[in-house]
Amino acid sequence: MNAVTQISMMKALVYQGPGKMAFEDHPKPVIIDPTDAIIRMTKTTICGTDLHILKGDLPSCEPGRILGHEGVGVIESVGPAVTAFKAGDRVLISCVSACGRCEFCRKGMFSHCTTGGWILGNTIDGTQAEFVRTPHADSSLYPIPEGADEEALVMLSDILPTGFECGVLNGKVQPGASLAIVGAGPIGLAALLTAQFYSPGEIIMIDLDDNRLEVARRFGATQTINSGDGKAVEALMKLTDGRGVDTAIEAVGVPATFELCEQIVAAGGTIANIGVHGVPVALHLEKLWDRNISITTRLVDTASTPMLLKVLKAKRIEPRQLITHHFKLADILEAYETFGNAARTKALKVIIEA
Amino acid sequence: MNAVTQISMMKALVYQGPGKMAFEDHPKPVIIDPTDAIIRMTKTTICGTDLHILKGDLPSCEPGRILGHEGVGVIESVGPAVTAFKAGDRVLISCVSACGRCEFCRKGMFSHCTTGGWILGNTIDGTQAEFVRTPHADSSLYPIPEGADEEALVMLSDILPTGFECGVLNGKVQPGASLAIVGAGPIGLAALLTAQFYSPGEIIMIDLDDNRLEVARRFGATQTINSGDGKAVEALMKLTDGRGVDTAIEAVGVPATFELCEQIVAAGGTIANIGVHGVPVALHLEKLWDRNISITTRLVDTASTPMLLKVLKAKRIEPRQLITHHFKLADILEAYETFGNAARTKALKVIIEA
Amino acid sequence: MNAVTQISMMKALVYQGPGKMAFEDHPKPVIIDPTDAIIRMTKTTICGTDLHILKGDLPSCEPGRILGHEGVGVIESVGPAVTAFKAGDRVLISCVSACGRCEFCRKGMFSHCTTGGWILGNTIDGTQAEFVRTPHADSSLYPIPEGADEEALVMLSDILPTGFECGVLNGKVQPGASLAIVGAGPIGLAALLTAQFYSPGEIIMIDLDDNRLEVARRFGATQTINSGDGKAVEALMKLTDGRGVDTAIEAVGVPATFELCEQIVAAGGTIANIGVHGVPVALHLEKLWDRNISITTRLVDTASTPMLLKVLKAKRIEPRQLITHHFKLADILEAYETFGNAARTKALKVIIEA
Amino acid sequence: MNAVTQISMMKALVYQGPGKMAFEDHPKPVIIDPTDAIIRMTKTTICGTDLHILKGDLPSCEPGRILGHEGVGVIESVGPAVTAFKAGDRVLISCVSACGRCEFCRKGMFSHCTTGGWILGNTIDGTQAEFVRTPHADSSLYPIPEGADEEALVMLSDILPTGFECGVLNGKVQPGASLAIVGAGPIGLAALLTAQFYSPGEIIMIDLDDNRLEVARRFGATQTINSGDGKAVEALMKLTDGRGVDTAIEAVGVPATFELCEQIVAAGGTIANIGVHGVPVALHLEKLWDRNISITTRLVDTASTPMLLKVLKAKRIEPRQLITHHFKLADILEAYETFGNAARTKALKVIIEA
Repeated sequence: MNAVTQISMMKALVYQGPGKMAFEDHPKPVIIDPTDAIIRMTKTTICGTDLHILKGDLPSCEPGRILGHEGVGVIESVGPAVTAFKAGDRVLISCVSACGRCEFCRKGMFSHCTTGGWILGNTIDGTQAEFVRTPHADSSLYPIPEGADEEALVMLSDILPTGFECGVLNGKVQPGASLAIVGAGPIGLAALLTAQFYSPGEIIMIDLDDNRLEVARRFGATQTINSGDGKAVEALMKLTDGRGVDTAIEAVGVPATFELCEQIVAAGGTIANIGVHGVPVALHLEKLWDRNISITTRLVDTASTPMLLKVLKAKRIEPRQLITHHFKLADILEAYETFGNAARTKALKVIIEA
Repeated sequence: MNAVTQISMMKALVYQGPGKMAFEDHPKPVIIDPTDAIIRMTKTTICGTDLHILKGDLPSCEPGRILGHEGVGVIESVGPAVTAFKAGDRVLISCVSACGRCEFCRKGMFSHCTTGGWILGNTIDGTQAEFVRTPHADSSLYPIPEGADEEALVMLSDILPTGFECGVLNGKVQPGASLAIVGAGPIGLAALLTAQFYSPGEIIMIDLDDNRLEVARRFGATQTINSGDGKAVEALMKLTDGRGVDTAIEAVGVPATFELCEQIVAAGGTIANIGVHGVPVALHLEKLWDRNISITTRLVDTASTPMLLKVLKAKRIEPRQLITHHFKLADILEAYETFGNAARTKALKVIIEA
Repeated sequence: MNAVTQISMMKALVYQGPGKMAFEDHPKPVIIDPTDAIIRMTKTTICGTDLHILKGDLPSCEPGRILGHEGVGVIESVGPAVTAFKAGDRVLISCVSACGRCEFCRKGMFSHCTTGGWILGNTIDGTQAEFVRTPHADSSLYPIPEGADEEALVMLSDILPTGFECGVLNGKVQPGASLAIVGAGPIGLAALLTAQFYSPGEIIMIDLDDNRLEVARRFGATQTINSGDGKAVEALMKLTDGRGVDTAIEAVGVPATFELCEQIVAAGGTIANIGVHGVPVALHLEKLWDRNISITTRLVDTASTPMLLKVLKAKRIEPRQLITHHFKLADILEAYETFGNAARTKALKVIIEA
Repeated sequence: MNAVTQISMMKALVYQGPGKMAFEDHPKPVIIDPTDAIIRMTKTTICGTDLHILKGDLPSCEPGRILGHEGVGVIESVGPAVTAFKAGDRVLISCVSACGRCEFCRKGMFSHCTTGGWILGNTIDGTQAEFVRTPHADSSLYPIPEGADEEALVMLSDILPTGFECGVLNGKVQPGASLAIVGAGPIGLAALLTAQFYSPGEIIMIDLDDNRLEVARRFGATQTINSGDGKAVEALMKLTDGRGVDTAIEAVGVPATFELCEQIVAAGGTIANIGVHGVPVALHLEKLWDRNISITTRLVDTASTPMLLKVLKAKRIEPRQLITHHFKLADILEAYETFGNAARTKALKVIIEA
């Protein structure tokens, strides 16, 4: 936090308004609040949300912002109020910053922390850079255990807790129960991997892309439906003896897929929305009012990160399955190109090494 | 169950197609299944759903059907498999018939019983008559305790469990929490009465009718909002310091009131739908996807009836407050007239004595 | 239910007072209540509880009683109030009979059914015979799906729901969490198998018998401790970095093993008792009062049987692993001999075929 | 936090070893950690636990310690990492200090915070003084709303959250359910007041002191039993038609009262322990193993304080009922005398004003 640090420069991927980004020199971050940490990034990745930002869909993220909210790194320095970490510690960065003390944090609803939430790579500079400043370090970072697989851990910054909390936990997945996941992109696949913690009986994956459905089958789906023929409802009802599914997870974010979930949820079931929606959907209460269903929405809280770390340690999940490509930070524009053309490149998650 | 019984006649209120009903002679019911009971009705009432049927809104209820799914009476005879009741027992009739054995009943989801559910006065003859046949008697009737107030008990057939289960339980009302109920008709008021079991901090009642809001205040609402000026959202946000409410209960059944609930629910909150909807509503997922909310629907299961009987016995609720008018069964058409013009007559629930 | 049936005889294993039993002729059962079914047994088994009865530990079971509360068979006849089953149906018999209608059944607490509960082979004749009468057939039997493995299903009569409900569900086993099971007999192993539905991080099995610990490792235990040296607490604390376990399942039924659970449960954890205890244990509240723990007891309700059937169908559990020996019904005394000397014979569960 | 502050003196009640305490001059506290606050006490009180310390029962509290863990005051200064409070703020002090970030705090189990928990007046100096240092200020203090009744708030430091969390929440008190509270001292009465948030049907208070039972009746008990004749079990069973109670709250802390709870809990019920126990109790598993009960222990987490503040604001509880005496800080020894002889003085809680 001395003068030299403050004028240091680093490389970073910077959003420059809709459709534009650059990998360029940027001032290295410095500690602002006493609860901050500065981290030298070792590995980061790209999220579907980063593509949304690039399209100009998120006004909260303004031009000039360094993108990225995932990754692992090494602590370079900490503010005077940070007690859980010190320089040199290897850490996992959560996509959500949580003060741990506000009304929402006390309820475990870290996503709505009054001075945090999802701010990294959104309203403050993010992780697709050589260095990042993380606020509320004590309650937003996790120590990396000796010998851990750091690439697997990058999947715990956002995608696995998102699939798990918004999809699996909210969807109340139970042993033996039936589950459909609509959307076999990285988030839907993360829900698929984490749903298996609860041993559901049937896991039906629905998507338009046969390649992704094939991946889903490899990841544990018991059935797949290509919804391209417009007959997904009929196909699913056939698989479930006409009952529908106990849990329907929406992992796309458009009206058609949400309304598909409305049609396939069984009486007494749950629709767990993960998708980021841009427009309203039609909720068919004229059919659903007496069906005893629940619909949930959630921005990931990362409250489950300690649990996921334990599951990972116990080797009951293999997050590396999600990683399809590797790039150097200097090649991050190429990484965006690859990740942004997933249908062609078959990319799921890409690792970017600093 | 002898020949004489089978040709006996009785008086009953019979649906005769959209807009038409008659109070007329009808064969007295007889035991069909071994789990049936025949009950001589002593008190019944009219539900808003009966008015829906009369409008022709429920195709499941066909002309010729005796209406009514609420009431108390005295058992006249029971089938050979009925073990919990005998002739002469005074009983409360639940609006939901439950076999107690199917997949749904085992989960307490009696509303979806595969051979029951809400069938009385819908797909089989109902309670607005001198006698009624109740299927699955052992698990669908409740003994009336010595000295109980039978008029209060009529409120436990449907309206109180509906307000409680669909609104209060599904809405997860908690001590100190904030609650809004949209719609101060009988169902909304039933939710209001039963919400107080959990000592919420604020109970804000929203309606268009000042008389009903005045009733709501008497029944325990801490604040009321007349939404007639189209500014209910602003008024509620002012009352809740801009946060919205932890629970929003929809007790009307039209798009405008459901969408009002979407606007007033706080992050982390719940919208509990009670209303019977005839058309889809717009679900603003573009605003709600990251708000960590739940939306629930439910057809009353009457799983809470034993609990409500205990609360009533403990005098922690006064269901009689809901009763505004009394009629003889012979005057049931007048009772419908009064109940159907509630704005003018200020009717909430009417008691019809056989 | 005609006269011929009533005087038929069959072979059965009959308890004849402490230490005595006989395989002898016994009148074939007939339907008594309209909700009864008569079942021709095809496969049954022996439970540790049967050995307790033979020792004279359960006064509720009187001499002259046919033992056994587990098995599968074919329905021979049903009473007039049975609607879910008919003669010829292949069924799984639950060890708990449930009316589905009493106060306890409505809560899913079938074990305390006022006219049922665990009565088979206890207060009424049981399943170690050619035929058995099962009360409350509609809610106490389960149809056997086409092509199902009937030997695996015998494990669903008692041992798997007992391990699952009393141990795993009551113990709130969670993904990534730590679990110790004290006692690697059939019940402890059933808890071990079903605990894995929830992907716990560590499963530490504790027993005195190295053979059983070896079996436990094969069944999924991640660590085992032979407590014979009196140092199980130290060993477990070492494995858990001094924290203890989130869940400790007691599957023996003596003071020493329960008190071991008290010593190894972590702050915030749960002790789930499965063991049948004959004497009081010392509860060290002077150490536990401020540890935020829960202790649970439970007689299996078999409320989870539908879930277990789905998990079995999905092949997420292999109950056959528990089966070590096969006998013909005529050789049931030999089966008792084998099962009763498990340390020597390495018996877990034995299948007895009629 | 300058040198002058550091040598300031103040008056404080200091523990001086078993049986001994003094009201004497003591150095005024200063900020040690950046998350500390220094508070000028305005009102404090005495807890039963303080009497335990004086008896020498808590070795963790060493001679020289200022006692007290309850009260309200005005912030004099805060450490540099405190962001939620500033000098001049009126605050409620929680008896539990919580960092908000450790593994336990993230689960809401603040009582086991790795750098906090119940330390005030135990392992660090407490609140029975003119000033107190409170660690983890941001997550251990609560702003006092304008116009709030500060004496009522003193009851929220410990006694009300303790009765509520350890007794009512852990005991799962439900509308209409039956509840017995064993011990009508301040803690038992706090459980009684907060149990009414959930509208239980019967609240049976059991104690040896007729005066306290009379107070309990005034506070909302529906029945009282003086257990002096050794026939409390029979009396309670008579009141509950032989079933026992759904929830039994132990609020004394000796074997006899805990074992009474074991005898009166109904099948499926819960024993919630609040009492501080010094010796083991006999757990009659030979009677309870098949009764489907839960037993819970808990050191108050004060996780419910925000809820209690809302209930208080809504005037759904009147904590002032618990206050029987007032003293000046200078007369704190007399306050101890009064509080310590409650049977004679009829003291419940005493307010000590600085």
